[in-house]
Amino acid sequence: MTLRLFIGNKNYSSWSMRPWVLLKQSDIAFTEVMLRFDGFSQDSAFKKGLEKVSPIGKVPVLMDEEFSVWDSLAIAEYLAEKFPEKNLWPKSIKDRARARSICAEMHNGFAALRSACPMNIEADLSHIGQIVWRDQAAVRADIARITQMWSELLNAHQGPMLFGDFSIADAFYAPVAMRIQSYALPVAPQIEAYIKRLSALPGVKAWIDQAHLESDFIAFQEPYRATP
Amino acid sequence: MTLRLFIGNKNYSSWSMRPWVLLKQSDIAFTEVMLRFDGFSQDSAFKKGLEKVSPIGKVPVLMDEEFSVWDSLAIAEYLAEKFPEKNLWPKSIKDRARARSICAEMHNGFAALRSACPMNIEADLSHIGQIVWRDQAAVRADIARITQMWSELLNAHQGPMLFGDFSIADAFYAPVAMRIQSYALPVAPQIEAYIKRLSALPGVKAWIDQAHLESDFIAFQEPYRATP
Ligand SMILES: N[C@@H](CCC(=O)N[C@@H](CS)C(=O)NCC(=O)O)C(=O)O
Ligand SMILES: N[C@@H](CCC(=O)N[C@@H](CS)C(=O)NCC(=O)O)C(=O)O
Repeated sequence: MTLRLFIGNKNYSSWSMRPWVLLKQSDIAFTEVMLRFDGFSQDSAFKKGLEKVSPIGKVPVLMDEEFSVWDSLAIAEYLAEKFPEKNLWPKSIKDRARARSICAEMHNGFAALRSACPMNIEADLSHIGQIVWRDQAAVRADIARITQMWSELLNAHQGPMLFGDFSIADAFYAPVAMRIQSYALPVAPQIEAYIKRLSALPGVKAWIDQAHLESDFIAFQEPYRATP
Repeated sequence: MTLRLFIGNKNYSSWSMRPWVLLKQSDIAFTEVMLRFDGFSQDSAFKKGLEKVSPIGKVPVLMDEEFSVWDSLAIAEYLAEKFPEKNLWPKSIKDRARARSICAEMHNGFAALRSACPMNIEADLSHIGQIVWRDQAAVRADIARITQMWSELLNAHQGPMLFGDFSIADAFYAPVAMRIQSYALPVAPQIEAYIKRLSALPGVKAWIDQAHLESDFIAFQEPYRATP
């Protein structure tokens, strides 16, 4: 097996989810190396586990034999080049450019949503979601932008996925779908239906199921729950 | 002319600098549309000027005829696809993957450096740089990571640029080079020499020269100077 993907906890690690789902849903064989989040300090087991594979000490990292690719977006591009027959990006140059624009937007945007609603797949945080939604205009603005983008793309391509078929764009927004569900953020029926379709894709469902089975409770990743 | 690049002030807009330098240094013809930063509120002239071209209201935006690509990284990828003969990314798949890893790292990392040392090409902020350097370990860590990365790549490819020839990676780190200079952050001779070579590339020099000529003073972009 040549590809190894280093990831964090499935319940929490939104950046890890993206390339994992991409590989799984595209039937690309890989070995998963899970590094449990025990902390992000230099002497954590998590950081020690990354020392040999990444200069920045973050997951995800893809190892192709002994060659390391870090960062979710660079991994997606690398896989798209290595497996052209999988069409990981949409086929037309314009759809590809649009997909890259929204993936880049995710890659350094939506700070309010990411910080107020960290991914926690197994948790029911609807009571927190209500308060966040009421009080944080920036979170509402993030969700407004995301749902407007999804809706426009779903209309343009007639679904089922953002660019018709499954692509890197869906993998990149999957963790946002997880957050909308855990925090029960209010979205239109068209968006709910997309989230349902996305969550039912075998590659996404496998991640979600394994997140539920993880049964780990890591306090520094849990701003809201006191116990699992 | 089919390509139009929307940018902010050359003195301040680090994200705009990247695709502009990339286009210029690669001899790709384009028209520049400069939107001066008068503020980032919804009713600013800046935001109004972007309404028709971008759903997120940020620069840079590339318009290819009426097709819009937003975000510096998506623009770089689009140009690399559209002008394959320009070799905007390095030629080997591994160098490309490495270049994408470091560009992605820039795209959502180095928060400490970006917030403590905003780009301000014409300013001499060496007195601020001294204090930042003394007090902010996170800025020192960002610079340590960046210079370690540059040094490793310069050694591996024997320069003059990060991957031998000029590529998207150099364009992505050019604004960091500007900051190191304005704030006079202490770096090794090898790094200083790279900054000098990078600044002397015609495409980079053109941006710097025009930034100096801009002679604009925008208070909300100036945490340190009271007057120009
Ligand atoms: N830009 C990176 C972000 C990766 C990231 O922040 N990963 C988190 C886990 S989800 C991490 O490893 N954090 C460790 C740390 O911040 O020290 C990517 O897209 O891969
Ligand atoms: N991820 C974007 C960042 C673009 C960005 O933040 N641009 C700044 C100017 S350098 C901007 O337009 N800010 C307006 C705002 O934040 O409202 C990219 O890489 O292009």
